[in-house]
Amino acid sequence: MGKVNFIRKFSMFTDHWSPKVIAQMNDYQFKLVKIKGDFIWHNHSDTDEAFIVLEGTMFIELENETIELNEGEMYVVLKGTDHKPYAIDECKIMLVEPKGVINTGNKTSELTSSNDVWI
Amino acid sequence: MGKVNFIRKFSMFTDHWSPKVIAQMNDYQFKLVKIKGDFIWHNHSDTDEAFIVLEGTMFIELENETIELNEGEMYVVLKGTDHKPYAIDECKIMLVEPKGVINTGNKTSELTSSNDVWI
Repeated sequence: MGKVNFIRKFSMFTDHWSPKVIAQMNDYQFKLVKIKGDFIWHNHSDTDEAFIVLEGTMFIELENETIELNEGEMYVVLKGTDHKPYAIDECKIMLVEPKGVINTGNKTSELTSSNDVWI
Repeated sequence: MGKVNFIRKFSMFTDHWSPKVIAQMNDYQFKLVKIKGDFIWHNHSDTDEAFIVLEGTMFIELENETIELNEGEMYVVLKGTDHKPYAIDECKIMLVEPKGVINTGNKTSELTSSNDVWI
């Protein structure tokens, strides 16, 4: 695997809430996602999940607070924690999590995305 | 743990080649590092290591090629791969790797840094 350029990779897709794998480190994957609008409440019972904002602003709604993340900020949602990501305008983010994690976690919805899609 | 702002964290230290942990996800850590000049040749026998450039330009010298990484680019050095990172001007990067990884890998040098230092 060669080096990865985030801007070049983001230019390769337009869909929202559909993570694309760009790199793997051991059994963990780095995924780029464009997000806009509301995701669904869900949790990942087996793993933490790292959100890194590369462009724009997103929010992670938790039970008792809402985390606002701007470009150059990150947040780790701990395993088992219910969360609902959303973005008012399109936001470009990177997720870091173990290979095999499903984007909607313990829920199935029309937003459930194919897994392990590389670009 | 709250959200992390990379610029704010980078303002908290000035030393080079001394990784600071800013977040943990399962047993993996996110570390910020300021680098300048030459590091040493080394490898990590047990793990891959992800380099993400947040500001500036760095190089990763490998046996048969040199990877140039600019802002918004990343590269994963596979386990067991000899590599020598360097930067001509100061460069700000993030490493992602398992907790416990020593920066100089299989080598000990004056550049060997304390581990698990949080800021």
